[in-house]
Amino acid sequence: MNLPSDTLPDDSELFTEVQPEAARRLMLAGLRSFAERGYHATTTRDVATAAGMSPAALYVYFPSKAALLFAISRPGHEKTLALVDESLEQGGTATENMRHFVRVFVSWHARTHTVARVVQYELRSLPDEQYQVVLALRRRIEQGVRELISQGVRSGEFDVPDVKTTAIAILSLGVDVARWYSEHSRKSPDELGVEYAELVLRMLNAG
Amino acid sequence: MNLPSDTLPDDSELFTEVQPEAARRLMLAGLRSFAERGYHATTTRDVATAAGMSPAALYVYFPSKAALLFAISRPGHEKTLALVDESLEQGGTATENMRHFVRVFVSWHARTHTVARVVQYELRSLPDEQYQVVLALRRRIEQGVRELISQGVRSGEFDVPDVKTTAIAILSLGVDVARWYSEHSRKSPDELGVEYAELVLRMLNAG
Repeated sequence: MNLPSDTLPDDSELFTEVQPEAARRLMLAGLRSFAERGYHATTTRDVATAAGMSPAALYVYFPSKAALLFAISRPGHEKTLALVDESLEQGGTATENMRHFVRVFVSWHARTHTVARVVQYELRSLPDEQYQVVLALRRRIEQGVRELISQGVRSGEFDVPDVKTTAIAILSLGVDVARWYSEHSRKSPDELGVEYAELVLRMLNAG
Repeated sequence: MNLPSDTLPDDSELFTEVQPEAARRLMLAGLRSFAERGYHATTTRDVATAAGMSPAALYVYFPSKAALLFAISRPGHEKTLALVDESLEQGGTATENMRHFVRVFVSWHARTHTVARVVQYELRSLPDEQYQVVLALRRRIEQGVRELISQGVRSGEFDVPDVKTTAIAILSLGVDVARWYSEHSRKSPDELGVEYAELVLRMLNAG
C-alpha cells in the first residue's frame, strides 16, 4: 500500500495493553511494514529489523508472520465488540445507544486508520484457524449492530426496510473511513463521528 | 488478500473494451494474481505465465507491472465518472438522479467486487504520475456527487448538514460493498443497489 510515513498513527494509542514491551514493539513494527509494503512482501526479518531485534527474538513472541498479523488484527475486533455491548447496555434510548456506537466507532476508525486499513486489507491473509476467530468476532459485532437497530424498531424510534442490510451499511460507513481518512482530512475524528451518527440516525428514520 | 478463486468475477463483464485480446488477457491475469497474492508479491512473470504468455510478450503491451495495475485501475474510475455525469444530466428530479447513481454504483461494486477491491487496496502502489491521474478522476467523481446533492438542496428535495461529508459517506457505502460482498451474499447486486439508494435518500432527508 506504500503509505507515506506521516500517515502512520501515533504509537501511544496502539496495542497499549500488550506485554511485554518487546512484543508490543514487534506489533508496531509489523504494522508499519505491512502498511508500507503489504503483508505478502514483508518478511519476519524485515519486521525484526524494523523493531531493532533479531529474527530469533521475534519468534520468541510470534511463531510466524501470520501469528503477528493475527495479534495485530484481533484487538480492534475485540474493542469493537466491547463497544457494541457497551452501547447496547448503557441504558439509554435506542437513539442514544446508536449515536454512542457510531460516534465512537467512526472516530476510532479515523484515528487509527492505518491499523484498521491493514486489518481489513490483509484479513484473508490469515491462516484459516485465525481467520475463523476474527470472522466469529465480526459476526458477533454485526449481530450486535442488528440488535442496536432492533431496539429502536421495538421502541418505535427506528423504522427500517431491512435490519440486516442496514446493519451492514452502518458498519460500512465506519470501516470505510479507514480507507480515505488521513491527517490532512478537513474534519477531526470526533467531528466526523458526530456527523456520521446523525447520518445514520437519518437512515434509521429516527425522528 | 488470498481470495478464494470462486470470488473472482465473471470475465465476460471485465475490460470488454480492451483491444487487442492479448492485452485484455494480461489484464485479467494481472487482476487474478493481484487479488490472490497482492500486488507487491506478484511478478510480471507470474502474470505472463497465468495468461499463457512470455514475460517478453507482456512487455509489448505493458512496460511495467505498474503500467498493468494502472490499466486495471483506470477504467472503473472512468466508468464511475461517466455514471456521475449521466446521473447529473439525465434530466430527472434530484431524487431520481441520486437514486439512479446509487443503484448503478452499488450494484456495480457488488458485481465486480474483486476488481474494485484490488483497485482500492493497491491504489497507493501506483507510481506517482499514475496515482495523480486516478486521484484527479476521484476528485471529479466526488465533485459530481456533491453536485448531485446540491441539485436536491437547491430544489428543496434534500436537506443536509454538510454536503462534503455526505458525499464521502455516499461513496463509502458503495465502495465498501466491494470489501464485504461475495457470491454468497444474501442479496443480488441489483437488490442491494435498490436498498442502498433508499438508505441514501433517507440520509438526504428526501421524501
